[in-house]
Amino acid sequence: MDESKLVSVSEIQKHNTPNDCWIVIRGQTWDVTRFLQEHPGGSAIIYQYAGRDATEAYSEIHAASVVHESLSPDCFKGTLDQATITEEWGKPTGLHREKDTTTTDTERPSLDSILNSYDFEDAAASFGSKKAYSFYSTAATDCWTRDTNEAMLKRIWFRPRVMKDVARVDTTSTVLNIPVNLPLFICPTGFARLIHPDGEKGLARAAQSTGILEILSTAAGYPMNEILQEAPGYPFLFQLYLNKQREKSRETLQTAERLGIKAIFLTVDAAGRGKRESDERLKTDEVIYNVVTGEPIKADKRGGGLTRAAGSYIDQGMTWRDLAWIRSVTRLPIILKGITGAEDAKLAMQHQVDGIMLSNHGGRNLDYAPPAILLLLELHKNCPEIFDRMEVYVDGGFRRGGDILKALCLGAKAVGIGRSFLYALQYGTEGAEHLVEILKDEMESVMKLIGIKNLSEVHPSLVNTADVDHLVPSGAEHPYAKWSPSKLSKL
Amino acid sequence: MDESKLVSVSEIQKHNTPNDCWIVIRGQTWDVTRFLQEHPGGSAIIYQYAGRDATEAYSEIHAASVVHESLSPDCFKGTLDQATITEEWGKPTGLHREKDTTTTDTERPSLDSILNSYDFEDAAASFGSKKAYSFYSTAATDCWTRDTNEAMLKRIWFRPRVMKDVARVDTTSTVLNIPVNLPLFICPTGFARLIHPDGEKGLARAAQSTGILEILSTAAGYPMNEILQEAPGYPFLFQLYLNKQREKSRETLQTAERLGIKAIFLTVDAAGRGKRESDERLKTDEVIYNVVTGEPIKADKRGGGLTRAAGSYIDQGMTWRDLAWIRSVTRLPIILKGITGAEDAKLAMQHQVDGIMLSNHGGRNLDYAPPAILLLLELHKNCPEIFDRMEVYVDGGFRRGGDILKALCLGAKAVGIGRSFLYALQYGTEGAEHLVEILKDEMESVMKLIGIKNLSEVHPSLVNTADVDHLVPSGAEHPYAKWSPSKLSKL
Amino acid sequence: MDESKLVSVSEIQKHNTPNDCWIVIRGQTWDVTRFLQEHPGGSAIIYQYAGRDATEAYSEIHAASVVHESLSPDCFKGTLDQATITEEWGKPTGLHREKDTTTTDTERPSLDSILNSYDFEDAAASFGSKKAYSFYSTAATDCWTRDTNEAMLKRIWFRPRVMKDVARVDTTSTVLNIPVNLPLFICPTGFARLIHPDGEKGLARAAQSTGILEILSTAAGYPMNEILQEAPGYPFLFQLYLNKQREKSRETLQTAERLGIKAIFLTVDAAGRGKRESDERLKTDEVIYNVVTGEPIKADKRGGGLTRAAGSYIDQGMTWRDLAWIRSVTRLPIILKGITGAEDAKLAMQHQVDGIMLSNHGGRNLDYAPPAILLLLELHKNCPEIFDRMEVYVDGGFRRGGDILKALCLGAKAVGIGRSFLYALQYGTEGAEHLVEILKDEMESVMKLIGIKNLSEVHPSLVNTADVDHLVPSGAEHPYAKWSPSKLSKL
Amino acid sequence: MDESKLVSVSEIQKHNTPNDCWIVIRGQTWDVTRFLQEHPGGSAIIYQYAGRDATEAYSEIHAASVVHESLSPDCFKGTLDQATITEEWGKPTGLHREKDTTTTDTERPSLDSILNSYDFEDAAASFGSKKAYSFYSTAATDCWTRDTNEAMLKRIWFRPRVMKDVARVDTTSTVLNIPVNLPLFICPTGFARLIHPDGEKGLARAAQSTGILEILSTAAGYPMNEILQEAPGYPFLFQLYLNKQREKSRETLQTAERLGIKAIFLTVDAAGRGKRESDERLKTDEVIYNVVTGEPIKADKRGGGLTRAAGSYIDQGMTWRDLAWIRSVTRLPIILKGITGAEDAKLAMQHQVDGIMLSNHGGRNLDYAPPAILLLLELHKNCPEIFDRMEVYVDGGFRRGGDILKALCLGAKAVGIGRSFLYALQYGTEGAEHLVEILKDEMESVMKLIGIKNLSEVHPSLVNTADVDHLVPSGAEHPYAKWSPSKLSKL
Repeated sequence: MDESKLVSVSEIQKHNTPNDCWIVIRGQTWDVTRFLQEHPGGSAIIYQYAGRDATEAYSEIHAASVVHESLSPDCFKGTLDQATITEEWGKPTGLHREKDTTTTDTERPSLDSILNSYDFEDAAASFGSKKAYSFYSTAATDCWTRDTNEAMLKRIWFRPRVMKDVARVDTTSTVLNIPVNLPLFICPTGFARLIHPDGEKGLARAAQSTGILEILSTAAGYPMNEILQEAPGYPFLFQLYLNKQREKSRETLQTAERLGIKAIFLTVDAAGRGKRESDERLKTDEVIYNVVTGEPIKADKRGGGLTRAAGSYIDQGMTWRDLAWIRSVTRLPIILKGITGAEDAKLAMQHQVDGIMLSNHGGRNLDYAPPAILLLLELHKNCPEIFDRMEVYVDGGFRRGGDILKALCLGAKAVGIGRSFLYALQYGTEGAEHLVEILKDEMESVMKLIGIKNLSEVHPSLVNTADVDHLVPSGAEHPYAKWSPSKLSKL
Repeated sequence: MDESKLVSVSEIQKHNTPNDCWIVIRGQTWDVTRFLQEHPGGSAIIYQYAGRDATEAYSEIHAASVVHESLSPDCFKGTLDQATITEEWGKPTGLHREKDTTTTDTERPSLDSILNSYDFEDAAASFGSKKAYSFYSTAATDCWTRDTNEAMLKRIWFRPRVMKDVARVDTTSTVLNIPVNLPLFICPTGFARLIHPDGEKGLARAAQSTGILEILSTAAGYPMNEILQEAPGYPFLFQLYLNKQREKSRETLQTAERLGIKAIFLTVDAAGRGKRESDERLKTDEVIYNVVTGEPIKADKRGGGLTRAAGSYIDQGMTWRDLAWIRSVTRLPIILKGITGAEDAKLAMQHQVDGIMLSNHGGRNLDYAPPAILLLLELHKNCPEIFDRMEVYVDGGFRRGGDILKALCLGAKAVGIGRSFLYALQYGTEGAEHLVEILKDEMESVMKLIGIKNLSEVHPSLVNTADVDHLVPSGAEHPYAKWSPSKLSKL
Repeated sequence: MDESKLVSVSEIQKHNTPNDCWIVIRGQTWDVTRFLQEHPGGSAIIYQYAGRDATEAYSEIHAASVVHESLSPDCFKGTLDQATITEEWGKPTGLHREKDTTTTDTERPSLDSILNSYDFEDAAASFGSKKAYSFYSTAATDCWTRDTNEAMLKRIWFRPRVMKDVARVDTTSTVLNIPVNLPLFICPTGFARLIHPDGEKGLARAAQSTGILEILSTAAGYPMNEILQEAPGYPFLFQLYLNKQREKSRETLQTAERLGIKAIFLTVDAAGRGKRESDERLKTDEVIYNVVTGEPIKADKRGGGLTRAAGSYIDQGMTWRDLAWIRSVTRLPIILKGITGAEDAKLAMQHQVDGIMLSNHGGRNLDYAPPAILLLLELHKNCPEIFDRMEVYVDGGFRRGGDILKALCLGAKAVGIGRSFLYALQYGTEGAEHLVEILKDEMESVMKLIGIKNLSEVHPSLVNTADVDHLVPSGAEHPYAKWSPSKLSKL
Repeated sequence: MDESKLVSVSEIQKHNTPNDCWIVIRGQTWDVTRFLQEHPGGSAIIYQYAGRDATEAYSEIHAASVVHESLSPDCFKGTLDQATITEEWGKPTGLHREKDTTTTDTERPSLDSILNSYDFEDAAASFGSKKAYSFYSTAATDCWTRDTNEAMLKRIWFRPRVMKDVARVDTTSTVLNIPVNLPLFICPTGFARLIHPDGEKGLARAAQSTGILEILSTAAGYPMNEILQEAPGYPFLFQLYLNKQREKSRETLQTAERLGIKAIFLTVDAAGRGKRESDERLKTDEVIYNVVTGEPIKADKRGGGLTRAAGSYIDQGMTWRDLAWIRSVTRLPIILKGITGAEDAKLAMQHQVDGIMLSNHGGRNLDYAPPAILLLLELHKNCPEIFDRMEVYVDGGFRRGGDILKALCLGAKAVGIGRSFLYALQYGTEGAEHLVEILKDEMESVMKLIGIKNLSEVHPSLVNTADVDHLVPSGAEHPYAKWSPSKLSKL
């Protein structure tokens, strides 16, 4: 890649068609003609910068290194010749792309006035980037699973005990033998930079300062090494989408192991793409124009949104057999993230993974997937031995310190929270730290009031699940739908 | 019928009373005096055109051929003598009949922005014909069954399986051995032309292009042969209301068989007329005037609406014995449409029909009839053998591809959708095709996320019905209401 | 009572204090000083007319004969001397009493546009007398029982049967061997004249013309004989509040028998007064002035309203033993109105009454009394033999013909409706007739659609009560609250 | 304490920093520098009066005697020298502290128009002090327990009996052998003076005049002896928060016994502080300024509110063993207030206390604690013998006389009401008396309508709890969550 080669503005401007498309990123000129069709975010979003400078739009979503990882060196066409920049070139491309002006920091509530995770969401909904809030808050189709994740937690009550000495309470625990101040994960999410330029880096600093664990996403906005540099020596976890191109996953896993990642959370619930309509709707409302010709670019008929942009490389053909391959390239512990029933939990035991994360992906993939907290009950009913065999985590709908304790009482070793951390990140690292403080304060208050001093005392008898028990399946089969023999034979 | 006979405008205008009433349709003059009392839509709607041209109002509801089928040749009075047309004759009869001006195509959302079936309904509610939307969306009395059809589907959850190879999923299936791209029916409905002039023809083209099946209604706005011409050689199904005049049904069935119809869906749940109030309300708000005298015509006290217009010929005395007669005039497979319980499903088995369609008529006939999806559970509980004996279909409340999969998992061979196709038809054939694409896309997404590759893998264990199981009857009798012997003896 | 004695206006005006209070009704002057304290409606409402003409206010609530029945002859002070009437006397007493001007007949919806009982209520709420609507619609405290009466009916579904010959359906039945067109009662209610001057007379004419039964209230606005004259020879029923002064009840019962009343409905659920707050609130918002002095009259601290006005004479000490006394003064059949549980139903059987009416008084007396329709289920669960031993009726929350059929299927011989008839009475007799027509039309439609030809075919298997079955008590005792022996001994 | 020593205004004004802070209360000058950090309400609220007169703010919350009890005599700096008062000193300190101007007595509804406890709350919400309403109405986090306390009461129905002689009903009972007109407590609450200057004194007068019992709070706004003087000779109860400094509790208990208090209600559910957000939010919205410098004072990051101000002295290490100590310093009966389950109720029996008060602290401490009324059912299911062994009381969500009867039927000996009395206190003693009259009137009405004459007749069979029975735990363990042996061993 010869960076000394200069390219003039007038030359770049010639390559402005779908069949011959150059763009400039951070002063480097790239031929993205082939890449247009592969771009997870769709071709239109790139094509509007055909023959132009795309730096600003690129940086909003991607880390600096992504372009190098995505394009082969022969796509590099040279360094932009600054001497050739015209007045027209420098003009903002405001024609086609409205600044997301809903962000108005001046009106945002002060961090002091944020009392709980709902306040963080309200602040993000009212004062943050509309695109970010749409992407973070959305879920699949009717959003039933997303909303029911929370509703089911609220239908579980405590059974407090009194007259216990709780003058001092202790929220510390361990996750995979890593000591933590709270048994809490920052869940892996993409596009954290949408809400704050620090993105996952900001969350990493907060994880370290508060003593909780961050699971880095395959889709993180910064490369793994850059994030880890924010909290040197601190333990991190890594979430993996298995790539259809196994070599890319091999490279990722080896990098992770080399950088000191402590465990791999293999996502198993992304074999299909969730239809997230509020996200898609955002895209369809946005008309994209070619910045040179000024003509509108036809959008994909089914809408778009960041969701559709995100997963084209994921291997939808992944099966239990692929665990062997993963083990062949890394010695890190493997946790399956996205188990939604006792049958697959049993298979996870058979395959001797190191843990499972009960998760419906925050309701973002399959709507009407089981509410997260009920999955712990399903395991108790159908395979209680799993709690002795491996660590079980859960995410989905957790809002309060009390919610976390309900899950711990029902056997979870730790709980993951995703959206709330993204909303908190609007205030940067300090926001995420404030969220952890709130959750810790809430947990301590609840621990005292249910009468336990530390987390070794959590126990199912401290919660009343009578309002939801009837919703938990008792076995693998439907209770009375006996499928006819002729059809069963096909299975 | 001597079409060469000319009738002058001045002659026609003389016949403008209830006892002597002529109207002109497409240049043909008809004496409708006797027919006034038989008209399913009531006499008032015709009488307002007494002595006038009724072409416009006629075409909005009826196919061209209907007048010939309904009136005997001796009612024909001759061809309108164009030479005698006066200025007054040509004037729009705007006095008595407001154009349904709520249709404002310019504001209608573009098809690209329609992401799901709810969007189609919103578009129909906000931008389409008020009369059409009222007729399509209405249901009987409190609309409980209509709304609960949907609500019960939402109370059924998936039990997904992960780590299955679902890189390619296949939604194809068969219905009565006819291969289909999706196991989906366009349900038979009347008055499709209210929302788009193409009416059932438009739906027929969409059925062919997307590979699904359309069930043509007895009350279709176009004659069967005209509809079939839109998709030559493509398989169609036909819905039959048994006529009190058996000869008319014989003729219809023979025509159907001759034209290549593949099966007869005999409607069994229309022995009474549903009281559809929003439809009736529309009518009562509309004052009808005699176009000649300008005086208001007294409307039926109980309101009217299209519903009451539709069913006067249906035989409310139909019993199981009539199946023999139907079999005597056609060799086509017979499916009973409108079964709402296990007892009648068992009788259907005894009478060896070829299939049943579980249906409460979209809640349009009997309010508080059982929610459609629960009927599949009732069969599993009470007569599971039926799923081996015949194909079982279901309609009522289906909105999403995921809804369809829930029904398939519970044993349905195919699912019917009615209202959504009518709403989509506002955009013509392309709208209906877009709806099928959406449903297919949703189905594929759900199939991947629950871990099945094709529809032979659907199974009750893939759904959790725990939230509704207690609502399903366990037998023919009420569980604890033991009727006293003295009264039972009367039954 | 010497009606020839004349009293001058100036004389009357002198008696305008609580200790010396005369009023004029229909030209007759009465000393009501003693009666002030006994007046069920409170003294203030009378006292505001001290020394004045009270005819208008009197007639709005009471029948002409009431004054004679309530006051002893020595209270009569003479006939108003018309010659002495001054200009001031004739002036409307608008100062103290606002005309209920919410009635605006011009805006009221036409009877043709009333499609169901809800429409009648809407019309009464929006266009009728505010006082009437408050009194009719109110119920005790939280109105839970009133609202749940309706809600529980909606939670019962039909289990329709198809392919039955229902070309002709028949809604006739019998009540106590009296043939009726519909098994429907007009429930006894007070103050019917508030909404229409015809009051119970109007309802009587409608009962006769439609072939249903009216139960005349002890608190009717017209004397029994006047009402019966409206429908000579037609059968009527009579509701009795047992009077603390047994002689008054004896007189009433003997009059009833003499006038041809067919049965006595003895109210057993009025041992306490319901606290009907919207009714009481109305009163407290109304300041009452002495019409002579113009000074405000202090109202009862706990509010008032028509409810408190109504029941002071009812014997709250009535027990099962009083049935013997009633039987000693009348040979008419006795029905107990207000049974709300199986235990009292069993006692009713032991006491060999002729029938019971399951009723919670429309939720107007005891809030959180059991929803009416569930009482039928409680009888089936605990004493099914009662349906063979006597006729069982039910009222409370019935709005639709379908609701009536649900009750009939569950064993009721007939159903009572109260509020809806009062709302319909705003349109006079024609309104009440229209309501019956609507209910009959709805019943016929439902009968056809559930597959029955006449009411001998109703049966519990035609309804699904699975959504409410768990709410029905299984016995006399609380299922698991075992009261300690020491306390039980007190019972 | 030499009160003759005079201090000049100019001297006082010099002590206006956090490290040297004097304030004047009722003409007495105090050095509060050390106390600043101990003040339960936080230092900021005091510091804003550094070098100034704090009388007005002090009196709003505290009794006159509190300053003497809280500060040691050496903190007294002398009597304010009235001669040195400057114009500036006398100025209202309106700069820093807005008068709570939402109180607008002129608009407040008259007591006559208050028909129930909801009316009292509405009046407090709309017309009273915003701070008072926020503190009284708030509850922990999601307010689920607060709201569900009421909702569960509404889900319990009556099973009325008819034909009983209820002409006279009697609401009297006893509590710990003390005769009462109603079995009703005024619950102990803090800060009653916020809504009315009479505070607990006003409630004490109402308790005496209506014949119910008041439980005086440790946090009462007046000293115990001052309150008791309002109703000499009348029995009172006392609520105790066990102090970390046992000597203070010893002194309090001995004072209580000396003053004639009848029993001690030991609060056992305050081992942690409830997170009451609407209360905290109020504080965070209020900027506090130093009244001298005019600069804002930084508030606690987590918000504040009266809740956090209230409990720093409570011993969160209290255990069952501490009962022995309490018994060693007082012979008064001991009732445990705040039991929320059968297991702790059994322990209370083992420890032979004199009674328990089932309470979740009005939902103010632990959100998702069990709804109060269900706790009675839990005792019936798990330890019914307790009702023979001691008196059981309950509070939480009681609004109506009917609610009280539901609890009595389920075994409660008396019921506590807190918030409603505070709301009623807005009208002073008369308001509280009016509330008792309302509740008594409601109770009498319900007693008649369910067929009981006096409270010895209450019984579980008079209520139907079928709608909530499934929510009541059957034992100490979770019904199917069998914790694995390895983890159980830790417990």
